[in-house]
Amino acid sequence: MFSDYLTESERQLVEKARVFGEEHFTEENVSRWYKEGGIPGDVAEAYRCSDLGYLGFSPERGGPDVSYTAQIAILAELTKSAGAIMPFQSQLLDFQVISRFANEEQMNMILKRYEETSRPCFCTAISDAGSGSDALGYRTTVRKKDGKLVLSGEKVFVANGQHTPYIMVSAKDLTEESDFISAMPSFWLIPSSCEGVSALPINKIGQKIIPFAALRFDNVELKPEWRLGTPYQALSQFQSILDIGRCIICAGSVGLAQAAFDDAVHHANARKIRDRRIGDFQQIGLMLTEMNSMLINMKAHINHACRSIEQGSGAKLAVALMKKYVPATAGEVANRAMQIFGGAGYTDSSRVGRIWIDCRGSQYAVGTDQIMVNIASRAILDKYAEQ
Amino acid sequence: MFSDYLTESERQLVEKARVFGEEHFTEENVSRWYKEGGIPGDVAEAYRCSDLGYLGFSPERGGPDVSYTAQIAILAELTKSAGAIMPFQSQLLDFQVISRFANEEQMNMILKRYEETSRPCFCTAISDAGSGSDALGYRTTVRKKDGKLVLSGEKVFVANGQHTPYIMVSAKDLTEESDFISAMPSFWLIPSSCEGVSALPINKIGQKIIPFAALRFDNVELKPEWRLGTPYQALSQFQSILDIGRCIICAGSVGLAQAAFDDAVHHANARKIRDRRIGDFQQIGLMLTEMNSMLINMKAHINHACRSIEQGSGAKLAVALMKKYVPATAGEVANRAMQIFGGAGYTDSSRVGRIWIDCRGSQYAVGTDQIMVNIASRAILDKYAEQ
Amino acid sequence: MFSDYLTESERQLVEKARVFGEEHFTEENVSRWYKEGGIPGDVAEAYRCSDLGYLGFSPERGGPDVSYTAQIAILAELTKSAGAIMPFQSQLLDFQVISRFANEEQMNMILKRYEETSRPCFCTAISDAGSGSDALGYRTTVRKKDGKLVLSGEKVFVANGQHTPYIMVSAKDLTEESDFISAMPSFWLIPSSCEGVSALPINKIGQKIIPFAALRFDNVELKPEWRLGTPYQALSQFQSILDIGRCIICAGSVGLAQAAFDDAVHHANARKIRDRRIGDFQQIGLMLTEMNSMLINMKAHINHACRSIEQGSGAKLAVALMKKYVPATAGEVANRAMQIFGGAGYTDSSRVGRIWIDCRGSQYAVGTDQIMVNIASRAILDKYAEQ
Amino acid sequence: MFSDYLTESERQLVEKARVFGEEHFTEENVSRWYKEGGIPGDVAEAYRCSDLGYLGFSPERGGPDVSYTAQIAILAELTKSAGAIMPFQSQLLDFQVISRFANEEQMNMILKRYEETSRPCFCTAISDAGSGSDALGYRTTVRKKDGKLVLSGEKVFVANGQHTPYIMVSAKDLTEESDFISAMPSFWLIPSSCEGVSALPINKIGQKIIPFAALRFDNVELKPEWRLGTPYQALSQFQSILDIGRCIICAGSVGLAQAAFDDAVHHANARKIRDRRIGDFQQIGLMLTEMNSMLINMKAHINHACRSIEQGSGAKLAVALMKKYVPATAGEVANRAMQIFGGAGYTDSSRVGRIWIDCRGSQYAVGTDQIMVNIASRAILDKYAEQ
Ligand SMILES: Cc1cc2nc3c(=O)[nH]c(=O)nc-3n(C[C@H](O)[C@H](O)[C@H](O)COP(=O)(O)OP(=O)(O)OC[C@H]3O[C@@H](n4cnc5c(N)ncnc54)[C@H](O)[C@@H]3O)c2cc1C
Ligand SMILES: Cc1cc2nc3c(=O)[nH]c(=O)nc-3n(C[C@H](O)[C@H](O)[C@H](O)COP(=O)(O)OP(=O)(O)OC[C@H]3O[C@@H](n4cnc5c(N)ncnc54)[C@H](O)[C@@H]3O)c2cc1C
Ligand SMILES: Cc1cc2nc3c(=O)[nH]c(=O)nc-3n(C[C@H](O)[C@H](O)[C@H](O)COP(=O)(O)OP(=O)(O)OC[C@H]3O[C@@H](n4cnc5c(N)ncnc54)[C@H](O)[C@@H]3O)c2cc1C
Ligand SMILES: Cc1cc2nc3c(=O)[nH]c(=O)nc-3n(C[C@H](O)[C@H](O)[C@H](O)COP(=O)(O)OP(=O)(O)OC[C@H]3O[C@@H](n4cnc5c(N)ncnc54)[C@H](O)[C@@H]3O)c2cc1C
Repeated sequence: MFSDYLTESERQLVEKARVFGEEHFTEENVSRWYKEGGIPGDVAEAYRCSDLGYLGFSPERGGPDVSYTAQIAILAELTKSAGAIMPFQSQLLDFQVISRFANEEQMNMILKRYEETSRPCFCTAISDAGSGSDALGYRTTVRKKDGKLVLSGEKVFVANGQHTPYIMVSAKDLTEESDFISAMPSFWLIPSSCEGVSALPINKIGQKIIPFAALRFDNVELKPEWRLGTPYQALSQFQSILDIGRCIICAGSVGLAQAAFDDAVHHANARKIRDRRIGDFQQIGLMLTEMNSMLINMKAHINHACRSIEQGSGAKLAVALMKKYVPATAGEVANRAMQIFGGAGYTDSSRVGRIWIDCRGSQYAVGTDQIMVNIASRAILDKYAEQ
Repeated sequence: MFSDYLTESERQLVEKARVFGEEHFTEENVSRWYKEGGIPGDVAEAYRCSDLGYLGFSPERGGPDVSYTAQIAILAELTKSAGAIMPFQSQLLDFQVISRFANEEQMNMILKRYEETSRPCFCTAISDAGSGSDALGYRTTVRKKDGKLVLSGEKVFVANGQHTPYIMVSAKDLTEESDFISAMPSFWLIPSSCEGVSALPINKIGQKIIPFAALRFDNVELKPEWRLGTPYQALSQFQSILDIGRCIICAGSVGLAQAAFDDAVHHANARKIRDRRIGDFQQIGLMLTEMNSMLINMKAHINHACRSIEQGSGAKLAVALMKKYVPATAGEVANRAMQIFGGAGYTDSSRVGRIWIDCRGSQYAVGTDQIMVNIASRAILDKYAEQ
Repeated sequence: MFSDYLTESERQLVEKARVFGEEHFTEENVSRWYKEGGIPGDVAEAYRCSDLGYLGFSPERGGPDVSYTAQIAILAELTKSAGAIMPFQSQLLDFQVISRFANEEQMNMILKRYEETSRPCFCTAISDAGSGSDALGYRTTVRKKDGKLVLSGEKVFVANGQHTPYIMVSAKDLTEESDFISAMPSFWLIPSSCEGVSALPINKIGQKIIPFAALRFDNVELKPEWRLGTPYQALSQFQSILDIGRCIICAGSVGLAQAAFDDAVHHANARKIRDRRIGDFQQIGLMLTEMNSMLINMKAHINHACRSIEQGSGAKLAVALMKKYVPATAGEVANRAMQIFGGAGYTDSSRVGRIWIDCRGSQYAVGTDQIMVNIASRAILDKYAEQ
Repeated sequence: MFSDYLTESERQLVEKARVFGEEHFTEENVSRWYKEGGIPGDVAEAYRCSDLGYLGFSPERGGPDVSYTAQIAILAELTKSAGAIMPFQSQLLDFQVISRFANEEQMNMILKRYEETSRPCFCTAISDAGSGSDALGYRTTVRKKDGKLVLSGEKVFVANGQHTPYIMVSAKDLTEESDFISAMPSFWLIPSSCEGVSALPINKIGQKIIPFAALRFDNVELKPEWRLGTPYQALSQFQSILDIGRCIICAGSVGLAQAAFDDAVHHANARKIRDRRIGDFQQIGLMLTEMNSMLINMKAHINHACRSIEQGSGAKLAVALMKKYVPATAGEVANRAMQIFGGAGYTDSSRVGRIWIDCRGSQYAVGTDQIMVNIASRAILDKYAEQ
């Protein structure tokens, strides 16, 4: 889908993603994993052992030496193949995140764990129960109590939150009397087994291969060495993670949309009513045309954002525009695909219904549509004000 | 929601629907029924024994003496209360259908069964596997073989198709060598226990309180007295059933949309970010405004259609316009509600996600959006051509 | 278009509007008036002398004794007939406005002038150059200077602002040191010939039968008796004028949309491509269907608003929802009509292009779409908060 | 706007277009030319003498040696600068067209004329009065009558049709009894002064700098040497002209949209209400965000189409998708810009209203939105059917 912007070797990796998907992501498998809320160990291991397995890690850590665009292209390809949001999406995000924050020791632990289990050993708990959209208005805190670091608060919507041995958690740092520091988020990598940590599953309506949990932290005692990064870098690291994270979400969205489109065109060719393929009805033709245009648009937005990140300029605007446009538009594509399938689109006999539901979740993850508008519009105004 | 067009006694019935829903349709119940794929016997019985229980039957059969608009208003109220498509919807449709077709004997059986079980004893199997949209292009047939009537074919998407002791089925009547008759649909009420009848569940992505099945008829021997109505009336009866059926579907849609809107406004008032209720953000305000307008529009379309049916003029156009506009728009309302809830809208902790999925199914049932456009546009052109 | 909600005698008035339009509003006339920026004296007189001529005045003043809905219906009919925004629209608004404010003497003058010239003798200058949307943030003021009342400021977008002998102008009342009074708008009816009044035409892109002007007031000396109404009633009178004014604007919009729809259906029937009327292409059929639905929606919104005003409850919300929905939707209808006409829709050989442009202006007049969202969303939130 | 896809020297040409626009296209000039229906001779000459003057001609004829994308980029820049559809648009199309068809002699005449007058000496008359959309269903014909070639028919919507000394006209070739040949369009370059040629102005609602005419051909006697190209190439030449022509139209659209966006952002920064710039209202921010996304999408579509043409594969689909998406979307951008300007957007005091009207015309020129859907959907279906 993104081949114009890739090198030859990157293109080969994308092709490997396609082949990997073809082998493992049969609809029978995917719909079973959807019911079970996860992928089996052998698939996770096959992925780790493939050339894609360390995607998200830097080359020094074993990651492939590819551009962001290539990573996005690979994830989009995997998602297209599956027709569902796959754990490889959150995993890519997790590895990108942790690579920015963790020190040598932490990284070694994470890599070792990954080798052992073929799964990321941690989840990323950012959204506070009371203030998902207000990234800096959260109430989860780390304080000093009797000389000890104590974490309290409640996180929601944490992908894989119930299953990982570690939790990466963000908290307001109130350990020092510094307005500056308390305004920054602080990040910690803590064992889920700590006393005071509890997890409750949250039932999502879609994206069920990656289950959700709410996490409570009741006066959890932290060790200082669990801190990720330094207070002073946290904000800019966090910002760059949000940028990458938003691209990753959109990679999933475009993959889903492409799958829905492909399925819909095939159906429009195959399904005949009174010997006419339904694709020849103008109402269906109009939908196909709109869907194709939307795919062009989604890819353009993603490319634009990836390149802005790579070139280090204008990323804020480009990423927000992308994250506003792509997930909602993926839903529009899937919605049309469902209609083209007729009643079958509303059942398990096609995968477009599931795709439609999976698309929807990405209008919140890593920042809602509305927050994107706020970021983008401010960036637009500023860009022109400078002129 | 429709009080302007109702008599005082009709309004009281709607109020009873509200009270019935309040008592029985707690979110705990509804979400359990959703998982279980049906409502428990005591609720079915409570409904039958209420003043609403015989809705859809003529007054002589025990039905309340109310206008179509009132029936629609009652169903909309029940659906709003539940926040889910309820079996009372298909039941109302079934009773309307059967009242038009069945003879005295058949009716007595149906009523008796209803008294005993508090459920309709049959399902309505119209959509052929190969041609849902092409109502007259189906391949399910009744033929004469060795002097016997034999039914063969395959029906899909049959609401409650696996659970009812009888099946109302439509088939091409090839029993006589008459082009006229074979062009008409014929209707039959047959026991599910006949040899050659088999049913397979179809898993829907939503509207799960009413499960689906595919039904196969393999040379099923029919008795002549199972025929519903006469060949010559069948087409016009069928047409009037489609009209009513489309209103019933839309009643469900507007009920769902109203539920989503109500929930969203409450949330927009209650949820505070930095001490501001989120409803005060203009992006949320815009969504609320659009949702309120859509509700006004949906109701106007439904009223317009119901009155056209009651007045016996222009129903074809009014109904098709309604069925095109209402279900899709209900989805738009629900979609906005989901967004207003933030991530919670994508989970079980609110019901708006389920509402959104339930809305979607009504864009196919009793005729897709596209078929409605074809009907409506022809009617518009004809109306003006006559002038 | 609104016959359901009208009495028999009101319906007759609407019919008279139709007949009046048929006689006077030939396309030749209308397009000439469009170029000339006004209607000729004999048409103005014919209107005044018709049964519609005193519409907007109370029955005591000679106005017909009809509901708001009827007034709206009449104006919609006239506009439909013309396929252009007509001066009867601003005139109806002007008469409604002045009837709420003027005292006996002022009314007599206005009526006398109307009898003489068949035109309203004043224009309504509300929007300040700097703050159209911010109705109470204007900078036009009346102050006391050397014991005299002095008006200063600049008004824009004043319909007929260059041509009327009087101007109704709103201004901040700074004549007394009262915060309360200065927070209210004050209204004045002043002769255009006063020293210090100047008018500059503003060229609109549409609605050209009613030309615009900007008005400057340079220390214009006011006589106390030119004040309209009393300070204490001004705000509530102003509010009720806005409500009526918004209905009037929407009456124009729906009239334009109906005209565009009628023309488009006729064209879709008449225009043949390879012997097929273009209305049979599904893409055209889809547009016709959407247009018809939008008309139903627009009328529902207008009815809803008019009845809320008449019943004195919920008008704020109903009117804002209407004013947000109707003008923009009229544009959508006209836009589709233009497309159905093909290239001819972009020329003078049909009137749908002009209709499309005229529609656009109503998305600002008497409050923009955005201001309506702000009013409506607050009213929605409050309504539910009370529950 | 397209710099990513241009070479350095192409980028310099675009910059020259910008400078040329800055110098000549002041708003005062443009709005005067709009009223007058054309640009003055000195501007036409300045353009011809600039480095852009022979755009559309092949390098051998003096045209710059640049890609299609570059030509599009230059035209978009000029249009953005002017905020109006400029004659350079039809001129670029005309030169592209004629370069494909004309023989040496014809080309020399055209170039000579261009040098003399700085205007194209011909207009392009394709659309038949009866069948604009049905490119091969036209009724303009060339027949043999008494051994002479005779042209009869009526063309409409011909840009500059009244003013050029020559007319390029398409006609059904009935000179030979060959079904094959009569199915092809034939093209002719004829003097407007021929007997039997008459032209009538058609008043457009926009794009007024390029006036329209209808042309009648009443048994016009043709000379054989006026034929353009050979019968056998005509169809493929015609197709390639349509492809280029559609790109050119879209270049104009994106230029208009960019102008509207730029103006709107500046206004959103500058206009203050109660000391808040209006861009900070979320409703305005949402519009700005959507506009920016649409611009990204439009450019992506144009790039995609230009590259498909250049690479000679997939052009049919890419061009149709572009021509469906871009002009309508430009209108959406302009529509939002108008709203951001408030009432001023509906007047001459800003140029966004004119831009909005100019945008609209491009939804018909060189093929309507609907025809594009038909082409694109067929191409999509075919592409997948082959797989
Ligand atoms: C599929 C999915 C996966 C997720 N994965 C993770 C994860 O792994 N880890 C994690 O920490 N979180 C995760 N999240 C949570 C996600 O980040 C939040 O849902 C999101 O940030 C919104 O926060 P909220 O749900 O609290 O909504 P709220 O903040 O309560 O927002 C409610 C509504 O108000 C709107 N709103 C808020 N502020 C403004 C404003 N200033 N202007 C206009 N509108 C506004 C929002 O757009 C929304 O419509 C996930 C969510 C989903 C759906
Ligand atoms: C929730 C739900 C409940 C249902 N309940 C019942 C039930 O109880 N009993 C029953 O018999 N059936 C039921 N149905 C089936 C329903 O009636 C069919 O799904 C519907 O009629 C469409 O038929 P199809 O699914 O075969 O689609 P198809 O006919 O295969 O249509 C495929 C696509 O082609 C489009 N299309 C078809 N013809 C045209 C045309 N001429 N022009 C333009 N587009 C066209 C359709 O709109 C659709 O987008 C139900 C369906 C749903 C989703
Ligand atoms: C055809 C026509 C006829 C008219 N007739 C008359 C007349 O007869 N007499 C008269 O006095 N006036 C008249 N007007 C003027 C009209 O009332 C104003 O144009 C309108 O109120 C908007 O004011 P503005 O143009 O100053 O826009 P601004 O107030 O400058 O608004 C600019 C933009 O900001 C938006 N905006 C402003 N505030 C907010 C907010 N709080 N939240 C979100 N967005 C906001 C607006 O919606 C708009 O998009 C007429 C206008 C038109 C177009
Ligand atoms: C600004 C402008 C500039 C132009 N410049 C030129 C020029 O220089 N030279 C020239 O020759 N022409 C020119 N044209 C004409 C243009 O090419 C035609 O307007 C266009 O091709 C449509 O033809 P029509 O107007 O006859 O519409 P029609 O063909 O009458 O179409 C009417 C409606 O039917 C729809 N329709 C038609 N067929 C189908 C179908 N099969 N399926 C679905 N819908 C269908 C159309 O989309 C349209 O909505 C110009 C037009 C405009 C507006």
